[in-house]
Parts: sequence; C-alpha cells; structure tokens
Amino acid sequence: MLAVNKERVNNLLQGLAEFGKTEQGITRLAYSDDDRAAQEWLLAQIADLNLQVREDAVGNVFLRRVGEDESLPAVATGSHLDTVIHGGMYDGMCGVVGAIEALYMLRDVKLKRSVEVIIFRAEESSRFGFATIGSKLMTGNGSPVGFSKAAKKGELSFTEALANWGCDPERYAEAIVKPGTYKSFSEIHIEQGKVLEETGKQLGIVHNIAAPTRFKIHIKGMADHSGATPMGFRRDALVSGAKLILAVEAAATKEKDNGTVGTVGVVEVEPGSINVVPGGVTLWVDVRGVNNESIARTLEAIKAEAERVAASDGVAVELEMFTADKPVALSEELAHKLEGICEAEGIDYLHMNSGAGHDAMHMAKLAPTTMLFIPCKEGISHNPAEYAKLEDICRAIEVLAKLLEQEGNE
Amino acid sequence: MLAVNKERVNNLLQGLAEFGKTEQGITRLAYSDDDRAAQEWLLAQIADLNLQVREDAVGNVFLRRVGEDESLPAVATGSHLDTVIHGGMYDGMCGVVGAIEALYMLRDVKLKRSVEVIIFRAEESSRFGFATIGSKLMTGNGSPVGFSKAAKKGELSFTEALANWGCDPERYAEAIVKPGTYKSFSEIHIEQGKVLEETGKQLGIVHNIAAPTRFKIHIKGMADHSGATPMGFRRDALVSGAKLILAVEAAATKEKDNGTVGTVGVVEVEPGSINVVPGGVTLWVDVRGVNNESIARTLEAIKAEAERVAASDGVAVELEMFTADKPVALSEELAHKLEGICEAEGIDYLHMNSGAGHDAMHMAKLAPTTMLFIPCKEGISHNPAEYAKLEDICRAIEVLAKLLEQEGNE
Repeated sequence: MLAVNKERVNNLLQGLAEFGKTEQGITRLAYSDDDRAAQEWLLAQIADLNLQVREDAVGNVFLRRVGEDESLPAVATGSHLDTVIHGGMYDGMCGVVGAIEALYMLRDVKLKRSVEVIIFRAEESSRFGFATIGSKLMTGNGSPVGFSKAAKKGELSFTEALANWGCDPERYAEAIVKPGTYKSFSEIHIEQGKVLEETGKQLGIVHNIAAPTRFKIHIKGMADHSGATPMGFRRDALVSGAKLILAVEAAATKEKDNGTVGTVGVVEVEPGSINVVPGGVTLWVDVRGVNNESIARTLEAIKAEAERVAASDGVAVELEMFTADKPVALSEELAHKLEGICEAEGIDYLHMNSGAGHDAMHMAKLAPTTMLFIPCKEGISHNPAEYAKLEDICRAIEVLAKLLEQEGNE
Repeated sequence: MLAVNKERVNNLLQGLAEFGKTEQGITRLAYSDDDRAAQEWLLAQIADLNLQVREDAVGNVFLRRVGEDESLPAVATGSHLDTVIHGGMYDGMCGVVGAIEALYMLRDVKLKRSVEVIIFRAEESSRFGFATIGSKLMTGNGSPVGFSKAAKKGELSFTEALANWGCDPERYAEAIVKPGTYKSFSEIHIEQGKVLEETGKQLGIVHNIAAPTRFKIHIKGMADHSGATPMGFRRDALVSGAKLILAVEAAATKEKDNGTVGTVGVVEVEPGSINVVPGGVTLWVDVRGVNNESIARTLEAIKAEAERVAASDGVAVELEMFTADKPVALSEELAHKLEGICEAEGIDYLHMNSGAGHDAMHMAKLAPTTMLFIPCKEGISHNPAEYAKLEDICRAIEVLAKLLEQEGNE
C-alpha cells in the first residue's frame, strides 16, 4: 500500500473550498451550480485514477474502481459535497476526499472486489428542510414530492431543483439500490462535537447514530396594529413562540445526561413587520438522541408545553411532524475491525456515538456500515470556523485504506 | 354644501382595494408598482374635480383646489395609500378618499383659501423599516440615506426604491415645505383600536399622537451543529432572543395603565437552518406611548434585561436605535372647532389619543393639525379583517368638509 499523500489531500480540500466561498464561509447548497462545479472540478483532478463514473436517477454519483471479480458485492465508502449556509470546508468533504485518497493508496494493491466511492447529494437539510435526501432515495425511503413539502417560501422545491439538475423526478425509484449490492459501507467524517478533542483521542469509532425528529410548531394568534392595540388585548403569536423556543431548550436540557438535544433553528413570523403584532409564527424544531425513551420524553414535554401555552395565551398551536427517524446501530463487526487496525497502528481511538445524522444511517439498511470520526476544533461545524487538522484527517484515511483492503479481499 | 355621496366613497375605497389584492388581504407597499397604479386609478376617477396635480421630489402628491386668494396659506388634508403586508382597505385610504369627497361636497361653496389634498408616500414602515417617510422628508426630518439603513436583506433600500420611482434621491431637500405654507392640516383615519367601538362613540377627536421608539436588538451567540453540540455547550442566540421577546412584552405590560405598548414584529435568525444552532438573532422592536416617562421606564427595563441575558447566556447583546420620536400634541384650537361641528350636527364624539403614528404628527410642525378617528371593527387594523362602516366614514367626511369650509374662509 502506498503512503497517504498529505499534499494531495490538502489540495483537494482547499480546492473544493473555493466553490460557494463567501465572506462568511462556504455556502454550497445541494443541487446548486456550485455543487455541480465542485464535483466536476474534483472529478477532473482525479482523472488519473480512471474510475468508472455513474450518476443515478436522483443525482448521487458513484466512482468505481473495478475489482478482479465484478460478480462480488462491492465495498462502498464516501460522503457528501454540499454544505449548510455559511458552512465550513470539512463536513462531508473529508469523507469524499478521504475515500478518493484511500483509492490512491490502494493503487498498487490487488483487490478481489470493486470499491465504490459514493458522493451523496443533499446530505444537509439547509436547502430543502430534509437531510440525507440522496441516501434516503437510494434506500427507498421517501420521494421527491415528499421532500418538497418543507420548501421555503419563494425558493425552488426539491422536485423543481431535481428537474433543474437534469433528473426526471418521476423516475426517482430507479435510484433504489438492491440489497446485496454492497459488502459494506464506511464513511469518514469530522466529529462535529468536542468529545475527541476534550479526551485527547485521535480517532472515533462510531457505534450508533442519533437520528433527528423534526417538526414545525405553527402558532396562530391575531395580527393587530402595534401602536393601537393595548397590551391586554393582544394575541401575539411571537410571544407564545418565544415561550415555546424556551420550552424546547428546557425539555432537551432536562435530558442532557441521556445525550438528547433540541434546537429551534428557523423562525418564520407573519406578517413580519415592525408595526404589526405578529399574527402567525412557525418554529422549525430538531430533536435528536441515541436513546429512544429520552427522545420520547423530550417530545412529550414540548407537546405538553405547546398545549399549555395555547390555553394560556388564547392562540392555536399545531405540531406538524415531518421527520421522525430512529437512532441507527452501526456494524459491531466493522467497528471491531477498525479497533484492530487502530491497535496495530498505535492509534489512540475512542468508541462513541454520533449526535449528527449521516448518510451512513441509511446505508446501514443496505450493508454493514461503520463511521470513522476525526477530531474537530472546539467541536465547531456548520460554521466558517469549522477546522480539522490535516494530520488527523490523514490518519483516518490510513485506517480507511486498511479497512477497504481487508474488505476488498474478503 | 352638497351632501356626502356614499356611493362614490364606497366605489373609491373598493376600487383602491383591487390594487395589491392577495389571498391574504392587500399588500400595496410604498413606491411599488401597485402603489403607483392605485394612485393613477384614483386620479383618473376624480378628473372632474379639475385639481392641480403636483408631485414633490420624494413622491408625495398634492391635489390642489385653487382658492380665490392664492396668496393665502392653503388648507391641507390627506393621508396615505400604501398598506402593510397583508393589510386592509381602510387604513390611510379613508383619509385620502375622505379628503377628496370633502372637495366634492365643497364644489358649490366659495373658498378664499386653496385646499390641498396630500397623498403622503410610505406612511407604513413595512417596506423600509421606517414609518411616515414622506411626511418626515416634507418636514426636513431625515434623509433617503438614513431611511435606507434598515433595509431588509435582499430587498431594495429606500434610496434605490426612490430612484426606481423616478426621483433623484440627492434632491430630496427640495421636498421640504416652508413654514407658513399651510393654514392647517387635518386627517381622517380609522382608530386602529377598540376604544370608540367599546364606548359606542361615532367619532374620535385626537389630542395627542404616541410616537414610536424603534430599535434592533442584535444577539451574537455561536453557530454550531444542532445534533452534535450538547445542551450545556451551546450559546444559542435564539434562546437568548426568546428571553428578550418576553422581556419586551413584560416591560410594556407593566406600563399598560399608562398606555405604553411594546412589540417585537421581526425576527431574523442567522443562519436560519433547522440543523444549525442559531449563531445570530436580530429582533426589531417597537415601543410607543403618549407618556414620556412611561416610555423611558419601558426602554430601561428592556435594556436592563438585555444586559442580564448577555451576562447569563454568554452572548453579546447590542441595541441599535433607529427611531426615537416624541409624542406629539395636536392643535387644541382645531379640536375645539371639531367639537363645535359635532355638537351642531348631533354627533356623539370622544376626545382621545392615538396609539398609532400618523403623517399628522410631522405636519403638526408645519401648521396647526388635527385628526378625526373613525370607529373600526374590533380595533383590528394592519390585517385583512380591518373594517369600518361606510356610515361612520361618511360621518367623518361631513365633519371634515365643514372644518375645511370654516378654515378655507377664515
């Protein structure tokens, strides 16, 4: 096996970071022109690998190194190239660049099985309100019409963006992958938390992925003139909304020891004028954890508070659920293999869970799946300040290359 | 004097309501195509009045009935045609249509003085974040550059909109009206509150106008991944923002008996993604009252809470003041004249204050000024459900016509 090429890894990461670059970090939304340009640039850089390139019916891209026995299920690895609004240059990109670098390292190694690098489309929910759309569609979970229902006002729906990308939204089922296609799937990703940094570990081996429950809270009050409506005569939807923002925070904080988190990330105010008492408010809520009971308790507490606020404030409050994924257990066998590689290489690893969702949680339905976490500075991600050390990224790539070698000849 | 023509009043109000009509009421923002179309339609309807039409350097429009002695200061009346987002068909329009109908009633009456109907531009703050821009500029209060600083992200600034309208923003000072130009100014308006309805009065004579203090609260926390950032490790700007929304409500409610109100009408969340802990929040706040000390106490309470939240939540909180108008006392002499007219006509009137701001509060600097309030259903305004009875509107027009007659020959 060839040594990891730190310069190439760095050049690919830095080069990708140019696409969607803004004054406040990288905004490279899924299915955007920047998303396409980044991918095309990347493919041009790695033309010397001579990989077979294929795009499926919903825009996921597969880069295949053909194995000696094409009849065997392939070994898959990969991640995504899209970012949040004002995001960083590591989330997703480390998994794609890492998979590609592992193939460079394996150029002088014979493999029985084919290896496929998957670039999943629309892992981030920033554009369409749903996460991991590409891997969901690959695993028969959801449809373009379903993923269009959280479209932001005045922006393209998922179906429209998919058609713009050149795909026929009605043919999405052609993207579904048959079980048995892959022997295994592995994904390198930055941790997006502070656990590795604070414990001083070099690599995380992931056992469970917390999956998001996402819903909107719709609050209907009464729009009134902000100057002429006395305080006692109002039904201000934003005042009720503020109570529910704090209720989400309080409910999740109570379950903190079980690893559950709760966030209101979007607030829509109707009509949204400084001279009108808000008549309607919609909050977008994200609750996650690895413990089903703790998640359920958190949701119950939010619902109870929503009912209490509706009654006390004289507003109508309605919850609209749009994602309720279950936490996903990854492959213990692959985790054990990673542990073996780390011990042989003297890498200081940590067994851990993922608080963030990943394409890996859907791939786990198709094949045994694992994840390798890289420490990231102060746990910051989805932010221009997102940072991971090149040395930590390359260490994870070395472990991935060894895993792909084992898997490819098994 | 001719009788009020209810059918014409109704036709003009209904006709104007077609411009900017949406499924959720009327959205006819200032300086928009709909604003222009409404005005042009109105001028076409009243061509038989043969009024002199003039537009000033910032888009305010003046319709003049020439008096017998043009050297005398004219009698002015009027209001505005723009609406909030999802507004109604009475706020502003009653004052314009009422002034025009009064001129129809006065067609057979000789008047020494000219009468001018003023259509003020951009009374509502919905588009630019500042209210009564047209009358402010007429009275030398502010500048286009100043009114551009609250521009919403991705929308035209006031300077840009003014240039689009056909005005040269650098020549705005030409719109300033010299003191002595007008003998008096009077404005009919719906009450936008419930006082007339609840007391069963037919007309309100206004003595003071509460003026808005408007400011933004900027909260800077830390954007983080919503799944991978434990509850104890967050600096969520929206959680702090929710506390300050409630602080505005609480501070104003405490001053309720002094008539002070406080509203957060706009919330901007950065980055505004369901999968990112909010890193930045801006609240747009409006505080009003007729009692200066009560307003000051309310602002102090909000500031104190902002400092407390900044310290407790580890976020940066900054207040950016952009309007701090003082309550305005209107003309007691004109109020007394209105009282005399009401008594002679057997109209059941009420002396009152205005919670809402109006162009009249700036006109009061140029000439003695008064306002006539019409009862409106449930006090609702800035809302598609805004409603005033035609009979109440026409009663106010009759009083206005009599006042204009007195003023015009004095």
